[in-house]
Amino acid sequence: MREVAVVGTGVTQFGYLWEKSWRDLAVESSLEAIKNSGVDKIDSIYVANFTGGTFVEQEHMAAIVADYLGLLHIPATRVEDACASSAVALRHAYMEVAGGFSDAVLVTGVEKMTDVVTSQGVYSLAMAADREFEGYQGVTFPALFALVARKYMNDFGATREQLASVAVKNHKNASKNPKAQFHNIITIEDVINASMIADPLGLFDCSPMTDGAASVVLMPLEKAKKLTNAAKPIKISGIAQATDTIALAQRESFTSFRATIEAGKKAYEMAGKGPEDIDVTEVHDCFTIAEICAIEDLGFFEKGKGAQATADGLTAIDGKLPVNPSGGLKGKGHPVGATGIAQIANLADQLRGEAGELQVKDPKVALAHNLGGSGATVVVTILEVV
Amino acid sequence: MREVAVVGTGVTQFGYLWEKSWRDLAVESSLEAIKNSGVDKIDSIYVANFTGGTFVEQEHMAAIVADYLGLLHIPATRVEDACASSAVALRHAYMEVAGGFSDAVLVTGVEKMTDVVTSQGVYSLAMAADREFEGYQGVTFPALFALVARKYMNDFGATREQLASVAVKNHKNASKNPKAQFHNIITIEDVINASMIADPLGLFDCSPMTDGAASVVLMPLEKAKKLTNAAKPIKISGIAQATDTIALAQRESFTSFRATIEAGKKAYEMAGKGPEDIDVTEVHDCFTIAEICAIEDLGFFEKGKGAQATADGLTAIDGKLPVNPSGGLKGKGHPVGATGIAQIANLADQLRGEAGELQVKDPKVALAHNLGGSGATVVVTILEVV
Repeated sequence: MREVAVVGTGVTQFGYLWEKSWRDLAVESSLEAIKNSGVDKIDSIYVANFTGGTFVEQEHMAAIVADYLGLLHIPATRVEDACASSAVALRHAYMEVAGGFSDAVLVTGVEKMTDVVTSQGVYSLAMAADREFEGYQGVTFPALFALVARKYMNDFGATREQLASVAVKNHKNASKNPKAQFHNIITIEDVINASMIADPLGLFDCSPMTDGAASVVLMPLEKAKKLTNAAKPIKISGIAQATDTIALAQRESFTSFRATIEAGKKAYEMAGKGPEDIDVTEVHDCFTIAEICAIEDLGFFEKGKGAQATADGLTAIDGKLPVNPSGGLKGKGHPVGATGIAQIANLADQLRGEAGELQVKDPKVALAHNLGGSGATVVVTILEVV
Repeated sequence: MREVAVVGTGVTQFGYLWEKSWRDLAVESSLEAIKNSGVDKIDSIYVANFTGGTFVEQEHMAAIVADYLGLLHIPATRVEDACASSAVALRHAYMEVAGGFSDAVLVTGVEKMTDVVTSQGVYSLAMAADREFEGYQGVTFPALFALVARKYMNDFGATREQLASVAVKNHKNASKNPKAQFHNIITIEDVINASMIADPLGLFDCSPMTDGAASVVLMPLEKAKKLTNAAKPIKISGIAQATDTIALAQRESFTSFRATIEAGKKAYEMAGKGPEDIDVTEVHDCFTIAEICAIEDLGFFEKGKGAQATADGLTAIDGKLPVNPSGGLKGKGHPVGATGIAQIANLADQLRGEAGELQVKDPKVALAHNLGGSGATVVVTILEVV
């Protein structure tokens, strides 16, 4: 089996991009990734998108991306696993390259969420949860994660201020990320006093609706090393995907995400690394509480200690383990189908020492955590400097 | 690279199945395939579905299938490429097994189309075409294929009767398929006198709205041979996927489908076979004209001769090359996301000599052709008796 590297990366501006269609965005990040990959031939394409059918009335997007990139007649496949769509696509692209089926694979994640009214957006997003046993009962995503937050606060004595510290940190990081949706620095008081969405989560505890796309090109590591006109290759040393019950009510725990634990375990094992080896991480902070659960389930902090650790600054860019230096989903924005690949692109920048004002100190090993729905699908990816 | 076999197969009844939900159907075909695969452990799951978001208000289906099969916490991925979704999923499952990443992979295609009113169904199906440059102009799928039919009739002098002979044959075949949606035998006159949908295509030139699911389990051929309690393994000797422009207007030809030609060429090359070696085929007859173009583009008949060949009975079950002995999409039904895998299951039955009244005489090599949208995605798969 061949070793696989991320070579090219491309990320569009994230935000309300009403002047661009979903295909404009997908083409923009794809071309950027292909250009800085230095390859002159792409063998196949993955397009990750959550719910084009209800956001932009378009399915069958992969062929469109191939068409608009001028890359006919190569294979193009759309992958959908809710908010984890693009990390899942990355894993399949990884297998295609590692298995020797292709030498240069483009993975593009895209979501256009802001062309519909908010009520339609909430309706669309609920399709990532169990429609029959959650959505039809009126449960929204903030409501699901509010249950997690309430249980976590109850079980571990975490405070509202500690939860809020996730959002404060991620907005601060995003303020230095030119491609982030939000550049406003917020305070603990801002978070606590914001409009209530689903008790205890307020507006600033929730990631926003976002338009955006992100792309990477994968290649066999040995071939990538020989390219002279390309970005420095970053090795994928571990990648694993796991599932959990779709309905939150059927989980063994509300505050620990089994799919994160399973995918993390396998990714660590594959990479021969442990939590202590990770220098920087991007985790799936769709809600403030989700970041806290993730950094515990991935082994960075003991169960019940993540909220305090965040409040203590341990996860800041200059902290013990920088978490979401890009601003995360909360600050950078969360174009659902693009999020997993944007994490990879951001971490590749970190490992190359090219993350600008977001740069953490000299990282060698990075971890990306991408979660779908309320945790029914999770992918954990470990990246390393070659 | 390992050789790969189809082992277990499972297909539900196709039709208007109002008493079953999409997840009931997916679980039913999956359990059947797992049971007759003889394996006691599934390593990963692919779920193919076209537009759950608009048909059943559910995305993130793959995790649900894993959950409802009791197969947590293994990876589960949804693949979507319009009507070719499940053959695309099959190709990725093939790579996962051939590349040595997994030893038993379940691929389940499912679509629940009849829980919405017809206008919603037409709206949903149009998302497989170019929404911005076709759908918004009022072009439906029958309209796209009507353009193909009109051009074909003009260029090659094919008659309305010849087109109709595809539907007559496929209904006749379906009448012997207990799982088919339609069991009514129709005549050339029935087809010609049916309600006009999009000139020259009438009601009987169009495949129906259908609920259904189909599953296969793939394994390494060498391991499959050692199973004593399983169905006879059928080797996947060729599988290839190709793309074409999404919009019909941008094609180099209206009557020849470039993605079919490209995928066919690669699949034949991979299998070391040619059209003359194929003993039985299931092709994507979403409309009568689509079957005619397919059997020409796959090299079974000269361009322009497919309609005459069909009218002459060359593609009947007892003809020179049996095409769609199962009844095809027209007679068996077309639950979009399930169609590609149903073709594989039907052909595996043929190659095992277990196709009952549909059995063609002693086939050794079979070909499946699954087309997405108006031809922007095509997968061709070649199966062989071991």
